[in-house]
Parts: sequence; C-alpha cells; structure tokens
Amino acid sequence: MTSALPDRLPEGAFRARRLIRFSHCDPAGIVYFPVYFDMFNGLIEDWFSQCLGIDYASWILGQRRGMPIVHAECDFARPSRMGETLTLGIMVERIGRSSLSLRFLGEHEPTGEVRLAGRLVTVATSLETQRAMEIPDDLRAALERYREQCRESAHG
Amino acid sequence: MTSALPDRLPEGAFRARRLIRFSHCDPAGIVYFPVYFDMFNGLIEDWFSQCLGIDYASWILGQRRGMPIVHAECDFARPSRMGETLTLGIMVERIGRSSLSLRFLGEHEPTGEVRLAGRLVTVATSLETQRAMEIPDDLRAALERYREQCRESAHG
Amino acid sequence: MTSALPDRLPEGAFRARRLIRFSHCDPAGIVYFPVYFDMFNGLIEDWFSQCLGIDYASWILGQRRGMPIVHAECDFARPSRMGETLTLGIMVERIGRSSLSLRFLGEHEPTGEVRLAGRLVTVATSLETQRAMEIPDDLRAALERYREQCRESAHG
Amino acid sequence: MTSALPDRLPEGAFRARRLIRFSHCDPAGIVYFPVYFDMFNGLIEDWFSQCLGIDYASWILGQRRGMPIVHAECDFARPSRMGETLTLGIMVERIGRSSLSLRFLGEHEPTGEVRLAGRLVTVATSLETQRAMEIPDDLRAALERYREQCRESAHG
Repeated sequence: MTSALPDRLPEGAFRARRLIRFSHCDPAGIVYFPVYFDMFNGLIEDWFSQCLGIDYASWILGQRRGMPIVHAECDFARPSRMGETLTLGIMVERIGRSSLSLRFLGEHEPTGEVRLAGRLVTVATSLETQRAMEIPDDLRAALERYREQCRESAHG
Repeated sequence: MTSALPDRLPEGAFRARRLIRFSHCDPAGIVYFPVYFDMFNGLIEDWFSQCLGIDYASWILGQRRGMPIVHAECDFARPSRMGETLTLGIMVERIGRSSLSLRFLGEHEPTGEVRLAGRLVTVATSLETQRAMEIPDDLRAALERYREQCRESAHG
Repeated sequence: MTSALPDRLPEGAFRARRLIRFSHCDPAGIVYFPVYFDMFNGLIEDWFSQCLGIDYASWILGQRRGMPIVHAECDFARPSRMGETLTLGIMVERIGRSSLSLRFLGEHEPTGEVRLAGRLVTVATSLETQRAMEIPDDLRAALERYREQCRESAHG
Repeated sequence: MTSALPDRLPEGAFRARRLIRFSHCDPAGIVYFPVYFDMFNGLIEDWFSQCLGIDYASWILGQRRGMPIVHAECDFARPSRMGETLTLGIMVERIGRSSLSLRFLGEHEPTGEVRLAGRLVTVATSLETQRAMEIPDDLRAALERYREQCRESAHG
C-alpha cells in the first residue's frame, strides 16, 4: 500500500504549514505518531473552510452531519522534531456514494523532503440517524472541482 | 489490506481492557480516531512489561533504544462511546531484522463485536546513533515465544 | 493558594493508580503538565462509577447533564517520568448550590512522595439549557457521604 | 485568586489567534479544559520565537534548558465551541531568580468577551543537572523589555 501513496503534492493541492511543537513530541524527541492523524483532521477542517467554501463547524454542528473515519493509515518516512515546519497537503483519491478517500502528504520545509504520506477514508453520516448518507450535492460538487484542480496542475 | 487484518484474537494473545472515557470522545460523541493509535502504543508498553518480561521504560530510557513507528493503519468497523469497555489485543505479524509488525484488535466487551483492527510497524533504533539496529536477542526470543503461544492457541 | 492544597490523602479517600506512559511525557522526559488535568478528569469518572455509585456516562449522555470545569489549578512539586506509578486521590472541598470544588493529590508509588496537588471547580449544568442547575439530590447525598467518610478517616 | 487575574490584555501584549477545532472539543461540544493549558504552552513557544527573539526549540534542545511548569491555573469564564476563534495573549507577572510567572488571557474574536484567564509558573532548569538555574541574562533582558512594553501600552 506504501507504493500507492503519493510522493509529491500537485501544484493545485491545498496546503497548510504546521510548526512542530514541544507538545507534539515524545521522550525520544520526535513527533508522537498519533499527532499526525490529529493534524490530518485539522487539515480537513481548514480545507473545507478555506478551499471548498464549506464551513466545517456549521456542517457538523448546524446540519448535524458527521464525518467518522473508517480507515486511517500513514507511512512515516522520516521523523520530525520540535521547531521544524511541515507543509501538509491534501488530495482527493476517491469520491464514493457516501465515502470519501483522502490522501495526505507532509513535506519538510524548506527542503521538500517527504516525511509522511497518509490516507483517511471517511463516511458522510447523519448525526440524527447515525447512518451513512449520500455525500450532499454541494460537497460533492466542491470535491469534484477540487480533484479536477489538482489533476490539471499535476499535468500542467 | 482490510482483508488481511485479523477478525478475532487467538486465545493466547495478550489483552487489556480500556474504558472509553469522556476525554477520548469528540463532539459527535464517539472516540476520536487518533486516540486508538495512542491506545495501541500503550498496549505495547503493557505487553512488554506484563507479558514479554521486558521493562519498557528501562528499555527506552535506560538502554537508549527507540521504537519509532514507520507505518500505522487501522480499520474502524464501528464507533465506540463513552462508558463502553473495549478489550484490546496484540499479535505479532512479522519479525524482521530490525522491524517488527504488530496487529491489534479491539472488541467490545461483553458482546465481542469487533470495533477496530489495526497494524503498527516499528523499527528498533539506537537513540544514540538514530539508526536502525538489529532487534536485540532477548527481545527477539520473547517475540518468537509470544508468536508461538498465539499460534498454538489459535490451532488448539 | 498552594498552602491550602492538601499534603496527604485521608485514609477514606478514593484512589486510583496511574502508570506514567511514554505518551504522557515530553521531550524533556517528564509528564507534560496538561496530562495531569486529563488524569484528574478521568479520576472523577472512576470515582463517580466506582465509589459514588453514579454511572458517569449515563449521567452525562443519558440525563444530559454536564460538569464543565470553571476553575483548574495544580502545583507540581516534583516531575514524574515514564514507568513510574502515581496514586491519585480525590477529596471534596466544598459542595455549593450548583458548584463543586474538588481537590486532588498525586503521590509517587511506593515512596508516597507528593508529586502534585490540584483543584478543580465544576458546575452542574443542564446540557439542554446550557445553564447551571442545582446539584441533583442523589449526587449531593453521595458527595456528602463521601466527604464524611474522608473526614472520619482523617481524624480516626 | 480569580480577582488577581487580568481582565484585559494591554495593547503591547503578544497575541496569537487560535481556531477552536473539532479535536479540541468534548462530547458536551465545548473545549476540553486541559486543551487550554496546551494552548498556553504553545503560546509561550510562539512568544519566545516571534516576540522575544529567542528560538524556543534551540533553547530547549540545543542549550539543554528546560522550563518545567511548577504551577498552573485557569478560570474558565465561558465555554468555547468548534469554529470559534480565540485571541490568546501573554503577560509577564513576575521575574524571579529562576522562576517566571506568566499570565494568559483568552478573548473571543471578534466580540472581545473574556473566555478564560490563566497563570503558569515555570522554573528555568538545566536538563543536564535537572536543577533550577538562574534565568539566563539574555532571556531576563528580553523578559524585562517585554514587561516594560506591556506596561507602557497599558498606561499610554
């Protein structure tokens, strides 16, 4: 599965910088690996709000929709340490009826060295019924536009 | 990769019970998924100390060895909620020269329903040189005994 | 305020043992201080369920009551490290109309050295109205019994 | 002690904006209180690097100095929720021989409503000897300049 993970971010991909903090690191001095999954979740929030044009908090709290994670994985190619900065990027891998597969890449700044490559699969869920629901049209359209934008930039 | 994850724990597998706490859960009321990876790491500690006969803290702090995670994955079959109890179990999948692949299963107690199935791959590392090292003989022997113990119980 | 914090647990106080894990510690090798506040919250859960006879999860999720923290404080007398075990204990300081002040003490096991002494003040809240409510009678009675039990043991 | 906590940030105080994320919140939908202490620690890092001109990571990792917290407290005046933004500010309360007392204020943006007011006391420590050390001259000078800058702006 490692080979299927991306080795660089397309130009059009949404990115955010993350400073590695003291609190992210363990007694061995490197980022404690579950922290990266938390960073992926935060990146989804920023991507929704800043790129897809969907307010993540309203989507969850107002419309009572959930995005539970049904699969998570990550390859950690190299450790990162306090004081370093990572650029995290997000890509759409697959848009299903109710599921969504996302890929993540973390590059060291400024060298561009790939530090980690991950994947999350989430399922759109109604918090009222606790059941999977179809990905709503507005989100689906935004996801497809985003995927196209990444593709074009990758082949540009 | 989902299909390769185990669907039940062999009798001989090391297990620990984990109460799902308020602090493990998110605004949707279910365990925030990175918490499970933290639980896997804690389970490794308990398994070393209580089952393999190796004091985890001394191993890390005293002998300056590390066990950085190079791959992590998990399938979350069903969500868990505050007040529920999970039984987490650990299995040895592969013992390499310096790498070790472990599998994890989380079952709801008392129904036995599988809630999650994960995998961590770690590499024995010298904290002095920051390089991979061969898995030390005492750990290797303990791992092989444990794997045998799980196998026998599975086929018993 | 330091002087007002207790310097030993009365015999009758509810206690729980906590192993200090790798994930609790920071790059300086000691417990990252917010972790202690998380431990206090977990101790309240155990105390409700195991000592006061009130199922914490049902109380929150079923009856839609909350216990938001309005004040938190802790003195950290000495650091703790991976592999050490702390005994955490809880005491009732004050039972108000809707507020409850609790004290916490953390002792190293087996030396009994006091490592930390904390206080949390919480307010019983209806999650429906988001407003403070009177502490329900069943909880108040359990809290008063517990306080008495600690007092008697302290003067025994 | 509540009354001694500040009720507004002086103009000259260092500030940072923090988006309240899904992962910061608990099943009651509000920020889980230990998260605020983690935010305070992160604010100290940003303040060192962006305001005091001292690279926090080098200070800890390179010069092997620590800043363990010996006292932490916070009043939580009002809860905060996913999607809200807080402005966190920091003030120097007291500069001792080796100890440093800092105050924190968290205001809701854009209303300015005070949501929380905290205090951390830390002690400069040599990670080599694990003993308190005098606050180094460069840090002391930077702290005194900062305190002056806050005072002037407060009385301006």
